[in-house]
Amino acid sequence: MSSTTSYLPREGRPTTQVPDTRPEDVSAALSRAAAAADAVAEVSPATRRAWLAAIADALEAEVEQLASLADRETGLGMERLRTEVVRAASQLRFYGDVAEEGSYLGLTIDTAPTRIVRMARPLGPVAIFGASNFPFAFGVLGNDTASALAAGCPVVVKAHPAHPVLSDRLVALAKTALAEAGAPRGTLEAVHGLRAGRALVESEQIGAVGFTGSQGGGLALWELANARPRVIPVYAEMGTVNPVVVTPSAAVSRLADVADGFAQSFSLGFGQFCTKPGLVFVPTGHEAVQRLAAAASRTATSAVLLTEGIAQAARSGVQALIAEGAEIVSQVPGPGRGWSADTTVLTAPITALHPTSRLREECFGPVAVIVEYHDADELRHALNALQGALVGSVITDGTDADPDAGRLVESLSDMVGRVTVDDWPTSVAWTWAQHHGGPWPSTTAPAATSVGASALARWVRPVAYQSIPDAWLPEGARESNPWRIPRRVDGKILHR
Amino acid sequence: MSSTTSYLPREGRPTTQVPDTRPEDVSAALSRAAAAADAVAEVSPATRRAWLAAIADALEAEVEQLASLADRETGLGMERLRTEVVRAASQLRFYGDVAEEGSYLGLTIDTAPTRIVRMARPLGPVAIFGASNFPFAFGVLGNDTASALAAGCPVVVKAHPAHPVLSDRLVALAKTALAEAGAPRGTLEAVHGLRAGRALVESEQIGAVGFTGSQGGGLALWELANARPRVIPVYAEMGTVNPVVVTPSAAVSRLADVADGFAQSFSLGFGQFCTKPGLVFVPTGHEAVQRLAAAASRTATSAVLLTEGIAQAARSGVQALIAEGAEIVSQVPGPGRGWSADTTVLTAPITALHPTSRLREECFGPVAVIVEYHDADELRHALNALQGALVGSVITDGTDADPDAGRLVESLSDMVGRVTVDDWPTSVAWTWAQHHGGPWPSTTAPAATSVGASALARWVRPVAYQSIPDAWLPEGARESNPWRIPRRVDGKILHR
Repeated sequence: MSSTTSYLPREGRPTTQVPDTRPEDVSAALSRAAAAADAVAEVSPATRRAWLAAIADALEAEVEQLASLADRETGLGMERLRTEVVRAASQLRFYGDVAEEGSYLGLTIDTAPTRIVRMARPLGPVAIFGASNFPFAFGVLGNDTASALAAGCPVVVKAHPAHPVLSDRLVALAKTALAEAGAPRGTLEAVHGLRAGRALVESEQIGAVGFTGSQGGGLALWELANARPRVIPVYAEMGTVNPVVVTPSAAVSRLADVADGFAQSFSLGFGQFCTKPGLVFVPTGHEAVQRLAAAASRTATSAVLLTEGIAQAARSGVQALIAEGAEIVSQVPGPGRGWSADTTVLTAPITALHPTSRLREECFGPVAVIVEYHDADELRHALNALQGALVGSVITDGTDADPDAGRLVESLSDMVGRVTVDDWPTSVAWTWAQHHGGPWPSTTAPAATSVGASALARWVRPVAYQSIPDAWLPEGARESNPWRIPRRVDGKILHR
Repeated sequence: MSSTTSYLPREGRPTTQVPDTRPEDVSAALSRAAAAADAVAEVSPATRRAWLAAIADALEAEVEQLASLADRETGLGMERLRTEVVRAASQLRFYGDVAEEGSYLGLTIDTAPTRIVRMARPLGPVAIFGASNFPFAFGVLGNDTASALAAGCPVVVKAHPAHPVLSDRLVALAKTALAEAGAPRGTLEAVHGLRAGRALVESEQIGAVGFTGSQGGGLALWELANARPRVIPVYAEMGTVNPVVVTPSAAVSRLADVADGFAQSFSLGFGQFCTKPGLVFVPTGHEAVQRLAAAASRTATSAVLLTEGIAQAARSGVQALIAEGAEIVSQVPGPGRGWSADTTVLTAPITALHPTSRLREECFGPVAVIVEYHDADELRHALNALQGALVGSVITDGTDADPDAGRLVESLSDMVGRVTVDDWPTSVAWTWAQHHGGPWPSTTAPAATSVGASALARWVRPVAYQSIPDAWLPEGARESNPWRIPRRVDGKILHR
């Protein structure tokens, strides 16, 4: 039987073998999830909030042990990983709060011409494929799992091969917490292995799929789901290159700040962020390329990546960029052992950004490309050649008077899901207004977000109940408003 | 050059040839729509409301002429068509009201930890493929077009070959009204012909697709869009068989009413409704099959269908049902000329409802199948074999005490987008709570609706604006709330 190998990335040395889930065990996990679906859907959102809080408590009780386990498998560093455990716990609580608030149910009541009560209904068990780069915040207990549980869907997670041991530990901890909090068996299940993952997407018992990772992985799942007899939604959030534009005015007034900001943002997690500023446009004539490159050299620490495959892809990505006309302007060598990578900043002529250029694609890892532009027309032309992305940033002179910023905000908002001004793109708050998604190919569904309150919307569909006596409606939709959720009645929003 | 032929369905006689739109004219229409996109997106929703009202006024000024033109091409009858013109006008006004109310923009503001303002943004020009069966309400100026314009998207419609002359007249009338109301050229464009329709879906200038019609047509467009380099959403609302369950208690207490209700609902528009009650489950032992069949015979009028193809498909559909074990229990012959169809009620053994049975698919036109069930288990098993559908209905004894109804409501809500009790499924109100959509294959997106306030959600995607000075935000997102739309601030819903 095949298995997943857990490695020590700093040494490139295998440790544990985690066996792939056998087909009969995948089926059993799916059956348990399906058997739990009605119960998970029918309890009040406040009850599910308590389940999520129980998982959060369990995470917070083991921050050090979990961070240590994660550091061993990912090499991301204890400090960052401790923070991430706390973040994951906070996210779980947040999605519970959002569920309890109840707006995600979209409860809407018409009293005329016909009585119609509309409320969202969970899609049933969902399959979640977590990311490699955030083992807690986007892993088996990350945003997708938390928002799906909050919305009333049992979750079957496919553990990421970059941290199989940690994934097992997290699932075990969450299962215990859920059971103690009274959630039914089958509320959370986990599988290992590529075949098991495919089996989830193909299962008639699965109602939707969530994925965070590469375009190759996300699109493969999307195609698999589209080939089912009953097609289901796949919400894939995929790696794209996120553009940053430094305005001429910023280059004049505060290039040193800008260079430091770039260096810090781009090197976070050794460049393994889906929000990494991968393509930075700077005006010509300020030695901006040299200044950003120098800051990157000063800031970068010796990089170890998550997996051998990611390290290889980063190396071959740099070669591909060079083949497209880019040249290296800064390189800080990795440790030279394990999944070592050189932190690399390149520059490329703006003319290289043609519609099929490799420069338009993400190079996952500590790699960024700086491109000089002469004027607004040239810049606009280059931006138009890019693909849809999760986030785009404008770095201004820091005043509301920057003459180019307004236009650039507008221009970027056509192609990304989040625009920031003078914030580097890497930080993604889990809040009510957040949108972490974007036009194809950054996601498979441009209106969907994998972070923030609206993340719950992916896991439900509305049902309109027409002329139905109160007692036969789902509990939350009844006249007495037992869950105390916001309602729209005859077009007017009512508070609880 | 190829063309579309307009026929007189009652005579089966061709009248007018409407030429297919030439490729260069399709490109020109797309370019005009693309050129209008920013202006259509940026005006206030109240402005677009006025544009929609102008089209509604124009429709209402020509009810008789339009109904007459439609009757000539569709044979649907003047009375029904007059009503439908008025309905289409009312829909246009409704979507304008929904836009002005502004909730569809989802304006959400976090002030901490980072200032994020999220607001929806139109997807740009959209392609709309209207239905044959509602030339006004779901035609070139129907729900899809009205909701897309309301949401800020220019619309390029593909005229349905069942009523090309009417479509041209409607588009001309709407273009004049839009121009007089101040909408930019390109706000509404139209094309004719299959190739032109494909070109719309493949165009880089199109941001989304709306479709109402058959599964074959909808899935073809969905596949075409999924094969684009930049995949775009396709919202296809497709024909499925809508189940109705008559409870044992209803069969005992009011079978005569039930039979009349069935006969009227099923024969509306000669059975050419996507909400037709196509599969009716009745308890054994009450002569329910015979009673429903007799009512259908009494009620049916001589049927003429929209096109020759639809009439042929209805005939071959009946043959296919018979091949699956169904037998005819009532048949009212069509006029025998033109696109004549026999109004046909069949019955089939419940065991014929296996997972690949033709009985699970829509037979468009005046055809329905009645199936007897012995008990709740047998019924549940049969319902589980059905496909997702737009609507399902429970016909009870008319009291809240019907012992089976609550469970059936729950069971149907798993597989449809709308559940009705003691309302036959054919009427679809355009209101705030409406949901006209459902699980695959009734739609390509189970959470999307093509009727009701939420129809606007299909044509926008959110953008999160992070740390962006007020002046650089889109107008509607600014601190002063110039459009006076509902906002959620730090998690709390505020009234305007």
